[in-house]
Amino acid sequence: MAETRFPPIHKTLAELTALVEGKLEGDADYVIESASGLSEAGPQDISFLGNPKYADAAAASGAGCLLLPPAAQNSPCRAKNKIYVEDPQYAFSQVLEIIESLLPKAAAAVSPKASIDPSARLAPGVSVGDFSVIERGASVGEGTTIAPQVFIGENARVGRDCRIYPQVVIREDCEVGDRAIIHSGAVIGSDGYGFSTDKKTGRQRKIPQLGNVVVQPDVEIGAGVTIDRATTGSTVIGAGTKIDNLVQLGHNVQVGRDCLIVSQVGISGSTTLGDRVILAGQAGLAGHIHVGEGAIVLAQSGVMSDVEKGQVLFGSPGRPRREAFRLMALYGRLPEFFEAIKELKAKALSSSGDHAKG
Amino acid sequence: MAETRFPPIHKTLAELTALVEGKLEGDADYVIESASGLSEAGPQDISFLGNPKYADAAAASGAGCLLLPPAAQNSPCRAKNKIYVEDPQYAFSQVLEIIESLLPKAAAAVSPKASIDPSARLAPGVSVGDFSVIERGASVGEGTTIAPQVFIGENARVGRDCRIYPQVVIREDCEVGDRAIIHSGAVIGSDGYGFSTDKKTGRQRKIPQLGNVVVQPDVEIGAGVTIDRATTGSTVIGAGTKIDNLVQLGHNVQVGRDCLIVSQVGISGSTTLGDRVILAGQAGLAGHIHVGEGAIVLAQSGVMSDVEKGQVLFGSPGRPRREAFRLMALYGRLPEFFEAIKELKAKALSSSGDHAKG
Amino acid sequence: MAETRFPPIHKTLAELTALVEGKLEGDADYVIESASGLSEAGPQDISFLGNPKYADAAAASGAGCLLLPPAAQNSPCRAKNKIYVEDPQYAFSQVLEIIESLLPKAAAAVSPKASIDPSARLAPGVSVGDFSVIERGASVGEGTTIAPQVFIGENARVGRDCRIYPQVVIREDCEVGDRAIIHSGAVIGSDGYGFSTDKKTGRQRKIPQLGNVVVQPDVEIGAGVTIDRATTGSTVIGAGTKIDNLVQLGHNVQVGRDCLIVSQVGISGSTTLGDRVILAGQAGLAGHIHVGEGAIVLAQSGVMSDVEKGQVLFGSPGRPRREAFRLMALYGRLPEFFEAIKELKAKALSSSGDHAKG
Repeated sequence: MAETRFPPIHKTLAELTALVEGKLEGDADYVIESASGLSEAGPQDISFLGNPKYADAAAASGAGCLLLPPAAQNSPCRAKNKIYVEDPQYAFSQVLEIIESLLPKAAAAVSPKASIDPSARLAPGVSVGDFSVIERGASVGEGTTIAPQVFIGENARVGRDCRIYPQVVIREDCEVGDRAIIHSGAVIGSDGYGFSTDKKTGRQRKIPQLGNVVVQPDVEIGAGVTIDRATTGSTVIGAGTKIDNLVQLGHNVQVGRDCLIVSQVGISGSTTLGDRVILAGQAGLAGHIHVGEGAIVLAQSGVMSDVEKGQVLFGSPGRPRREAFRLMALYGRLPEFFEAIKELKAKALSSSGDHAKG
Repeated sequence: MAETRFPPIHKTLAELTALVEGKLEGDADYVIESASGLSEAGPQDISFLGNPKYADAAAASGAGCLLLPPAAQNSPCRAKNKIYVEDPQYAFSQVLEIIESLLPKAAAAVSPKASIDPSARLAPGVSVGDFSVIERGASVGEGTTIAPQVFIGENARVGRDCRIYPQVVIREDCEVGDRAIIHSGAVIGSDGYGFSTDKKTGRQRKIPQLGNVVVQPDVEIGAGVTIDRATTGSTVIGAGTKIDNLVQLGHNVQVGRDCLIVSQVGISGSTTLGDRVILAGQAGLAGHIHVGEGAIVLAQSGVMSDVEKGQVLFGSPGRPRREAFRLMALYGRLPEFFEAIKELKAKALSSSGDHAKG
Repeated sequence: MAETRFPPIHKTLAELTALVEGKLEGDADYVIESASGLSEAGPQDISFLGNPKYADAAAASGAGCLLLPPAAQNSPCRAKNKIYVEDPQYAFSQVLEIIESLLPKAAAAVSPKASIDPSARLAPGVSVGDFSVIERGASVGEGTTIAPQVFIGENARVGRDCRIYPQVVIREDCEVGDRAIIHSGAVIGSDGYGFSTDKKTGRQRKIPQLGNVVVQPDVEIGAGVTIDRATTGSTVIGAGTKIDNLVQLGHNVQVGRDCLIVSQVGISGSTTLGDRVILAGQAGLAGHIHVGEGAIVLAQSGVMSDVEKGQVLFGSPGRPRREAFRLMALYGRLPEFFEAIKELKAKALSSSGDHAKG
């Protein structure tokens, strides 16, 4: 671990094996104190092999114990202690949860340096940091932590057990569900980008944006994410959805449940996503389209029209993955291709010459 | 409408028809209280059909009245009251303006919790929110609202009737014109990205960025937008231009009047845009180029060289739209294409075989 | 120069020529007061030609003196005074450094309106602005300026002579090296985007992100940049690296020394960069790959696998530049290409007809 504030966990391999429901090969009484990546791990650390790409690093790791997939059972390995589990990354994550839980938690407290409107309702166990602002009629649910320098606008509602990091903006009337995590620099409820163009003058006239944003429970929103409020009604982020940094969601977008929206994705206004959709990094979606349940849009792809349930798209414009990959491969063969045409033309010429002569 | 704070508008259809200069079909005395999207609208709401894609939703809408284009005059429709107008979206926007105007406005006030340098000049009717900072020699024009947690640097000048949302940064010496709207997380006047590389060591040496940013009147700047100050002189955003969220404008960029710059666009240093240019989402422009008046760059396109007035570009690298779409279509036919070449080669072979035999 | 606060420099051309180690053509006693771009420069300004594209602007410039490359020695030019230097941009930058140095510096001061935990350690000569928060156990090195509204989390360490602009977030446990410059809206140490998917329910479970971010000395980080903390261990930004606005760096990314990462680039988790890598605007890198020393990824390119030392990539997916440019050119010839195939098919048909007849 980097020089952080986490105390040692003092867990035997017997305990950890039980925790992750794995199969131990090694010394059940061996004591683990922390968790670490394969290359940095020392004898007191547990580490894991989550990606076959790192098999060599796992073999060479100085970790006190390795979490390995069953398939690695016969691979040579420097580590003497191994726990075999179906999903080593998840098992590692279970150990990280123990480490995290040992960090002393600050008692809930509302800073006297925050500015909280007397009409705002803070449930018991709420923390509010220095220089945060909570405006008229806003409410914050039990156990939620509002870090310093956060803005919560008029009539906004934040649920229970949320963690709102420093310098988040939640604009007026927006709703954030229970257990949400919102990272620094995120802006929830900025005005949608709506203008009507005066045909005579070419000037843009602002369309008022009077709706809000509804973030359902168990959502995580990354740093610097911007989510625009609806023109009327709500921009909705479905329960359990996880949004990476610097993502842009336009007004009236509807995101389903348990979606993964990776960094720098942009979704234009009024587009809707089914449940469990995955949008990889830097993908862009046009407005007013629907992406069906479980569909996957690969990195940097551009989507201009509806996507069927379960489809996997790639490219700009996005096409079904198999087709996109085939086209990409053929694209790489264009030179060979041009060569062939040149030859065929030459032959055709000489052949018609032959004919002429024939 | 979502659960927001807007009071009912109590307008008869006669009044609304007059407002939008439309043609009413239905009950002139019917009273509308609010506005809503097609699917959420109830009998007290007015809604609109702005995109033919939603014709079915319009037909099924439970709205008390629909704003429809003349072309929809004979389509069957559940709503009994209809107002026909050339631009239903604009008409809807006019109703939204009424709703917005009914929201009680807070009286202008300068928070005692803001930190305002004694040399800063605040005109009458300026509001400044909690924990905002206005530094030495800065000025703010009449009727402008500075939300909480805003930073306005030394010698910066903000015009009249602007709305600066929470957590905006306007750095020293920058100028923001009248009626500007700047959304949360926007940064105006960060240093340009300028370095000279030491050829011997490969190290980068910072080039001081001593210019500023000038935002002309009637500009809207989205959440999380970054606009770098010029090396010398000014980065300029032309009057009436509207910038969506998470856009990046490099140092010494010059944007014309009434441009639309959609989300996640990036413009490299010293590039200039004519008036009424439209850059769609995620487009990227190289540095030191010019995009002519009225040109349009479609989504995710990359522009590496000058663009003529009125041109429409698509693709990375961007090509004129018609060409780009033709190439895209041909690209999709590459498999058929390869097949043809294979056949032609086979034929050529057999044909030369024929010849040999012949 | 724009209307900024910089005092005149009163330097003779003799002095400036010595400063930039150039060769003067003109009046050694002529006095320069400021620096400006070619088109805005007046008789008191020095300007420069840094890009051959601007040769005409240089010829027409009203500058009192021009910094020119030796190659421009015989070009006609309105300016009477010229200084010839190998790298005119760098020479111009040296003049800008003089201008910058003349701006009076505020005395170091810790604002009584900041909130600084008593256990935080501030070295002598540290400035902290209004409404900044420095939490328990954090430290700030000598001569560093923390602007207003900055957040520095528990146990975070900021080095000497850094400049941290308004509204930067440096989360708990993160380290920032000496002489770093961090622009507004940047977030250092947000949680990495790590989830394990429950195969039964499709729900995402958060993987704790317990590592930190280490920013080595002499790094500049642009406005709105987001850098995620490592799952365990550190996300590392190598010494001397310069990061432009709105860049996203995932957890456990390792960036080498003296890299240039241009605006809106995204780097996925665990990817590593060698020294002096250049990533141009809007490029995207997949996770778990390595980009070798000195490699260059051109604008909007997508990189899915390891990149060798010194390679130059273009396209999405990225290919070696020469190949990518050749493919791009052939792509533009697809119409001609299709035409050729059509003709060849027609000929083959008529030719086989000939055979049939023959």
